[in-house]
Amino acid sequence: MKTGADLAAIRERKPLVHQITNYVVMNETANATLALGALPVMAHAVEEVEEMASIAGALVLNIGTLSGHWIEAMLLAAKAANTAGVPVVLDPVGVGATRLRTETARRILGEAEIAVVRGNAAEVATLAGRQAEIRGVEAIGAAGSRAELAEAASAELGCVVSVTGPVDHVSDGERTIAIANGDALLGTITGTGCMSTAMTGCFLAVASTPLQAAAEALVAFGVAGEDAAVGAKGPGSFHVALYDALYNLDPSAIDSRAKVEE
Amino acid sequence: MKTGADLAAIRERKPLVHQITNYVVMNETANATLALGALPVMAHAVEEVEEMASIAGALVLNIGTLSGHWIEAMLLAAKAANTAGVPVVLDPVGVGATRLRTETARRILGEAEIAVVRGNAAEVATLAGRQAEIRGVEAIGAAGSRAELAEAASAELGCVVSVTGPVDHVSDGERTIAIANGDALLGTITGTGCMSTAMTGCFLAVASTPLQAAAEALVAFGVAGEDAAVGAKGPGSFHVALYDALYNLDPSAIDSRAKVEE
Amino acid sequence: MKTGADLAAIRERKPLVHQITNYVVMNETANATLALGALPVMAHAVEEVEEMASIAGALVLNIGTLSGHWIEAMLLAAKAANTAGVPVVLDPVGVGATRLRTETARRILGEAEIAVVRGNAAEVATLAGRQAEIRGVEAIGAAGSRAELAEAASAELGCVVSVTGPVDHVSDGERTIAIANGDALLGTITGTGCMSTAMTGCFLAVASTPLQAAAEALVAFGVAGEDAAVGAKGPGSFHVALYDALYNLDPSAIDSRAKVEE
Repeated sequence: MKTGADLAAIRERKPLVHQITNYVVMNETANATLALGALPVMAHAVEEVEEMASIAGALVLNIGTLSGHWIEAMLLAAKAANTAGVPVVLDPVGVGATRLRTETARRILGEAEIAVVRGNAAEVATLAGRQAEIRGVEAIGAAGSRAELAEAASAELGCVVSVTGPVDHVSDGERTIAIANGDALLGTITGTGCMSTAMTGCFLAVASTPLQAAAEALVAFGVAGEDAAVGAKGPGSFHVALYDALYNLDPSAIDSRAKVEE
Repeated sequence: MKTGADLAAIRERKPLVHQITNYVVMNETANATLALGALPVMAHAVEEVEEMASIAGALVLNIGTLSGHWIEAMLLAAKAANTAGVPVVLDPVGVGATRLRTETARRILGEAEIAVVRGNAAEVATLAGRQAEIRGVEAIGAAGSRAELAEAASAELGCVVSVTGPVDHVSDGERTIAIANGDALLGTITGTGCMSTAMTGCFLAVASTPLQAAAEALVAFGVAGEDAAVGAKGPGSFHVALYDALYNLDPSAIDSRAKVEE
Repeated sequence: MKTGADLAAIRERKPLVHQITNYVVMNETANATLALGALPVMAHAVEEVEEMASIAGALVLNIGTLSGHWIEAMLLAAKAANTAGVPVVLDPVGVGATRLRTETARRILGEAEIAVVRGNAAEVATLAGRQAEIRGVEAIGAAGSRAELAEAASAELGCVVSVTGPVDHVSDGERTIAIANGDALLGTITGTGCMSTAMTGCFLAVASTPLQAAAEALVAFGVAGEDAAVGAKGPGSFHVALYDALYNLDPSAIDSRAKVEE
């Protein structure tokens, strides 16, 4: 892992990160992407997503507020990204909560090549065919350890899997990395999971492997969360400080702050 | 009224509050819901709203940025909520400004059972068949006192009605409660009306009656507004402090701060 | 130019500014409109946009997240605004990045009368039929000076053109005004271009000419940006301070702070 070097590369190259995401967090993930140093673009019309995805450095798909046209757009964009060699990260928001979400995530995984799936334990467990308790879009619980879940889901889904929570686990099926950076306040605002997926997209545009990209994104986002928590009085002031912290991340110091175990 | 006890219940039970709301405030109402202590979920696809509404603790409908599919989704969700015994709150944003909004609000009220309508004076007056002056989505004025309006509208619409403004009035047609908590800065940011509707949804999931839920939500939101105004330099810093204040509301102190009259 | 007097007029008359804009910035442009002193309304349904645009003080069209129904709604609203004598400002977000965006902006300009086009150099250059380098929705570069570009584009498009950047240029084809207010932090958050378009809509509702409205809006927004930068620690705190600064703009002092050259 070389989070600092890849962060510096993001800031130098400013990759375009095409995001087809949900209405709730669109502004947040765009601002997080900009604060980190990449260029976000949101575009969801079936008439333009192939064109946009093909010129991007990475494509982010997030199923948080689905509807028919958006599903079609995600599939078109993912296939265009595949053809152009652009890596794709999928955030299966709320999988397990409704059939539409579960089926759509499975369909995207079946019809396109996904580099990384980033979800909470319940979402990933559902995708991997296990029991999970989910309430709306929040994970309540999932059987087994997250490390084991990430590894098994990676094998099952054929891509890198990030399971985020108090400690995050990222696996490509062979290597599994635990990342303990972050702060409990990240759970008090909506869209921090979606932001970590957007960060994964940014790192996918520059990192040497999807596993590295996924792990480095969670280190960077977690360290920013730690910085933002200093002096925060609640979710509002934490949220504001999170953008400041992403913007002020120091590439030369970040690797020494990574709390990583393999 | 037992705002403190019901706030504590929200934080303990973390009810899922399903919101079909407008694009402008979606992030804001989700974050306000989380900050208060409940779990928000936004879902608007006709394919999934019935499933989601049925498992929710409350359903919030807000017509702020309508279009055809969303109207259909709101009706499906409301009927599913009715069947499952899930209480529904309706925010008739901009009723009176365009025919589409007025007709849609009337249609929802006609086809589903609504527990609480939360609107400004002009919106509620329009629904109750009275003259009102409205500019876009902002109330400019409405004939008569707000207390009398809330009571008459409740009788007319057959549900609890919250009329918010400098002083809020909540009525079930028999009892009418005036709530004087809040701060003028709440009028300087968009979506604070929508947030108070979302707060009503949170309290509907735990309170013993819709009247109590509606009144307690406005007390809690108003007290948070008072806390947020301390030290605010304008709408930006007030907005941030509002989430901190909702998160830091003290169940053991809130009832003594309620400015309530019957 | 009389920015202070027109700002005071906005606060006194509170014009309704109807915005059909993109999902990413909707909350931001609504809050900036409110903070400045006008009343925002977002409405995009084909069933209601003509009604809403006809009663507005100005109409803002922004193509940042297009899809079919929204294009139809923008055309209907623009024509209704034209009929009612309501001025229209167009923000051609991402023109040049995809065919859909370029064609839609051209179609709006061809079928309706637009008072002001507000874009970055690459977007305006593309509309004026020149070469430009664009990455997603961010301008990378455009040939020639921005002053000359604004003037030529105004002649080509037959309306006032604002080209924003480190220094903004506004032209009606005969007069070209350079505005040097602002701060580099404006480039670190998403939607500040869209906000400046919304500000242009607010000033269009009160100013004597579209050229004045366009220039005054950029002075006001730029001065607010300068105020917001004081003490900001990054994009998050700057973003919050920007709303406070818009709200606290002093009409009696703003003209002396304008950095304007003709």
